Amino acid sequence: MSILPKSVTNLIDELAKLPGVGPKTASRLAFYLISRQKEEIGDLGNAIIKLKDSLMTCQRCFSISENELCPICSNPSRDIALLMVVEEPLDIVALERTGYQGLYHVLGGAISPIDGIGPDNLRLQELFERIKKEVSPIKEIIIATDPSLEGEATALYISNIIGHAIEQGEIKKTLILSRIARGLPVGGDLEYADEITLRRAIEGRRPA
Amino acid sequence: MSILPKSVTNLIDELAKLPGVGPKTASRLAFYLISRQKEEIGDLGNAIIKLKDSLMTCQRCFSISENELCPICSNPSRDIALLMVVEEPLDIVALERTGYQGLYHVLGGAISPIDGIGPDNLRLQELFERIKKEVSPIKEIIIATDPSLEGEATALYISNIIGHAIEQGEIKKTLILSRIARGLPVGGDLEYADEITLRRAIEGRRPA
Repeated sequence: MSILPKSVTNLIDELAKLPGVGPKTASRLAFYLISRQKEEIGDLGNAIIKLKDSLMTCQRCFSISENELCPICSNPSRDIALLMVVEEPLDIVALERTGYQGLYHVLGGAISPIDGIGPDNLRLQELFERIKKEVSPIKEIIIATDPSLEGEATALYISNIIGHAIEQGEIKKTLILSRIARGLPVGGDLEYADEITLRRAIEGRRPA
Repeated sequence: MSILPKSVTNLIDELAKLPGVGPKTASRLAFYLISRQKEEIGDLGNAIIKLKDSLMTCQRCFSISENELCPICSNPSRDIALLMVVEEPLDIVALERTGYQGLYHVLGGAISPIDGIGPDNLRLQELFERIKKEVSPIKEIIIATDPSLEGEATALYISNIIGHAIEQGEIKKTLILSRIARGLPVGGDLEYADEITLRRAIEGRRPA
């Protein structure tokens, strides 16, 4: 017999499904919510329930949006010569903080055979069609997939396909294909860096 | 102008109010929820909204309960000779895992002048009245407040008041007042223990 009321164990179970939230954190969060006012709890609950009510996918970059086009795609002052390819909409939030002014294309993940995600499960076809369609304004494709095994595989796949399309004359030869640099993170400590990061940092070295 | 839809920034703001959840974790959780099915999100949202609908305070131990008496207080097989004093209902969840079979009394916090919490803001009066009323069955009061400054102050306050009441003849002399041991946690490393914990561990030493 549980010593906790059913509504509490139910909430703990639901919270424990969140990524990075174990049973102990879930209990702590549930008891924190019990200690709050009913209105405050209602605000959080309603924010969750209503989350997807007005959400759709941007028809151009496939990020989340409230309209057919997201605020970035519909902003005429963005630089349409730059197209950055990312895995998830959350990546855009981080990249926007850097002051990047180009456009984005959200793949919706990365190639991961172990999770059953192949190229066909990502918005790669849409990317290639977009490059062909928008090719006159686009000057550079910047691949910004995660520096993980899956992200690397996806980046390689994209550059292979685009390279092939350029050879075939389907995409203009002047298109620049680049990848954001992998190396030591700012504030990081060289002696604690793993060997792959270090190797990448050496490979990516630039004139001082 | 935010690049995120309003429903998303709203949820991130609400999630960031939770203890231990910063803006980055809140974003990650929000985007995780976006990736889930609407039903799954509804389950979590409803669990939060309905959390307090059927919750009340146990009239005897002041833990959370669905009835006038919580499952522990209404369980006739519990040992009514033992009364453990804790700060929060969540402490009971942890203590129940130890196999403790006595009853509890939830103070609702600890004395903390810096937060404006004095003895009158806790269920101390209720504790003393309970000890006087239930004094014939109760053989031992076990103080299990947190090993923090506030928990220590609360424990000291309780033992002073009860000691005084025993002197005054208001509580029987045979009542045992104890505190759970403070010392090195199991699996801990002696060389990393802080000096106060070590001092407590030495003070609390027992025959080997």
